[in-house]
Amino acid sequence: MFHIESTDKRLAQALQRKIDQKTKPPGALGSLEQVALKLGLIQQSLIPVLNAPCMLVFAGDHGIAAEGVSPYPQEVTQQMVMNFLNGGAAINVFCRQNGMDLRVINAGVAEPLPDHPLLADQSMGRGTCNFLNTPAMTAEQAREAIQRGADQVEQLAQQGCNVIGFGEMGIGNTSSAAMLMHHMTGIALAECVGRGTGLDEKGILKKLAVLQQAANHHNTGHNPMAILATFGGFEIAMICGAMLKAAELRMLVLVDGFIASSALLIAHGLYPEILDYCIACHQSDEQGHRKLLDYLGLEPLLRLNMRLGEGSGAAVAYPLICSSLAFLNEMSSFEEAAVSQRKNEADQA
Amino acid sequence: MFHIESTDKRLAQALQRKIDQKTKPPGALGSLEQVALKLGLIQQSLIPVLNAPCMLVFAGDHGIAAEGVSPYPQEVTQQMVMNFLNGGAAINVFCRQNGMDLRVINAGVAEPLPDHPLLADQSMGRGTCNFLNTPAMTAEQAREAIQRGADQVEQLAQQGCNVIGFGEMGIGNTSSAAMLMHHMTGIALAECVGRGTGLDEKGILKKLAVLQQAANHHNTGHNPMAILATFGGFEIAMICGAMLKAAELRMLVLVDGFIASSALLIAHGLYPEILDYCIACHQSDEQGHRKLLDYLGLEPLLRLNMRLGEGSGAAVAYPLICSSLAFLNEMSSFEEAAVSQRKNEADQA
Repeated sequence: MFHIESTDKRLAQALQRKIDQKTKPPGALGSLEQVALKLGLIQQSLIPVLNAPCMLVFAGDHGIAAEGVSPYPQEVTQQMVMNFLNGGAAINVFCRQNGMDLRVINAGVAEPLPDHPLLADQSMGRGTCNFLNTPAMTAEQAREAIQRGADQVEQLAQQGCNVIGFGEMGIGNTSSAAMLMHHMTGIALAECVGRGTGLDEKGILKKLAVLQQAANHHNTGHNPMAILATFGGFEIAMICGAMLKAAELRMLVLVDGFIASSALLIAHGLYPEILDYCIACHQSDEQGHRKLLDYLGLEPLLRLNMRLGEGSGAAVAYPLICSSLAFLNEMSSFEEAAVSQRKNEADQA
Repeated sequence: MFHIESTDKRLAQALQRKIDQKTKPPGALGSLEQVALKLGLIQQSLIPVLNAPCMLVFAGDHGIAAEGVSPYPQEVTQQMVMNFLNGGAAINVFCRQNGMDLRVINAGVAEPLPDHPLLADQSMGRGTCNFLNTPAMTAEQAREAIQRGADQVEQLAQQGCNVIGFGEMGIGNTSSAAMLMHHMTGIALAECVGRGTGLDEKGILKKLAVLQQAANHHNTGHNPMAILATFGGFEIAMICGAMLKAAELRMLVLVDGFIASSALLIAHGLYPEILDYCIACHQSDEQGHRKLLDYLGLEPLLRLNMRLGEGSGAAVAYPLICSSLAFLNEMSSFEEAAVSQRKNEADQA
């Protein structure tokens, strides 16, 4: 379905040499150096550039919300999409601040949404089925959602975009993400389930009981597509497809928090090479996220105790990606600046 | 010498209410919410603003460098100042990226520096004395350097600036900072001494031996001014004064890495209220920094394994400060956006 290749590492040595020739001690820019290296490899260039950065926010509702797994009512999904369209949500604020274009995709919101220039209607239905009893979607719906997500990215690529963040909105979707994580990684369900938007201890126990019951009910094995269809959300499936297309087109993928990372788990299960194109922007306060990122071997740029979703972690991290690029392309080398390098170790002693 | 008052906390409740009414779960923006609260208290406003952000980079040489405590030769201090003036260093790149004005202050560089519009000549001498045998500076010099640092900030305040980062350049200054930390906090010297710009294990042991010898030679007690004069650098003393003046003028102080934080330790020893005005921007990879920030009770925004100084950690963190302000001032409230709030806990159960 996709053609994703690992980045060609033959350029790594030349990139590292360029980084080490900058007027700073070797390694002194820490994670920014790793981001610069990754970006150079993705673009196969010693002078990578970021063009037309965009944030795609996919929204969808979840049948499982009927089981009381969130402290917020389901209509908040639609209300928050309206907030996005009106420019008042956190993701609007952070995208404006950091020069990112924002688009919202109706992946399957239960309540009706208006026509709006910022909104793409790709609705797969008025929310998923309640996976407590029945798969959230059919296998065909999962494939279709992946394709629709991919199509959104293809349009952006044609407009010159080469860096995309992926956000989401959907009451109940930490439940869906926890199930994806549990089934894809084998980590105990209790370690994948967290507070979401702010459950208390009693609420978490109830959520865990509901999800354990659902896990007992279904047998998906280790098949990523079956896991996605059984427990996923339409927004999660679209993000999965969008990430895969972005990697195929050699774009930089900005990974946000717990939900977006659960979509990446499915994408990674299908095409492990996708990780070469991904930056983990923010480690969410949602308890499972640290272990999810560890499983993928991704080190997050930020740990700000945020747990909002919407792409907010990716949006606030974007200036750090720009910093990585800026030092690689703009800093002087020791030679250019006529700065002395290290004494050799013998001189030190 | 300074008049620094704690911020008036009576506004905290109204600020927290404003933060909690934003369209997000309570606390979901994590550290950004804490920064917004701090900024509102500093400016005593529900709609704080950041004006004319500036980075002041103080440069000075250190007599202790003669003992071979750095892998780089002393002339690198002057060479890196020239790099700053020519726009090629990391701090230039990050300040340009993030819209911060950059000024460089010659606090006491050994090699001569030219006249340059970006450079203020406040030199206290051609480097400090070697504190292995004799105090780095006199008590009078320490007071004078503090005053000169304060004067730099006063000039900026008159130009409308209300947020300042403080950076430094000085071969050997992690040695000075380690001594300040050890004497101000009582933490064992071995835990305060680190790799600096990149010592190997043998180099660290030698640095520790040199510094232990110096610690044995002097008896400063717990007097911050005596500690500063005995072990400080001219650039560190000026940063200390600059931070104190910034707090007095109710400006936001962006604290960079290990060296800048050692200046804050002295400032804090003199005026503990200064912490109300400080944001720890980045936890350096230099090993003592985590414990230094713990001692002050400051939680860093970023941990990117950087260890460059120059103010680089503060400069790359600045967009996150702007994100904090932006959400506070621009996000819609639940009421404005007509978004439903949490169900009460009884409904959840």
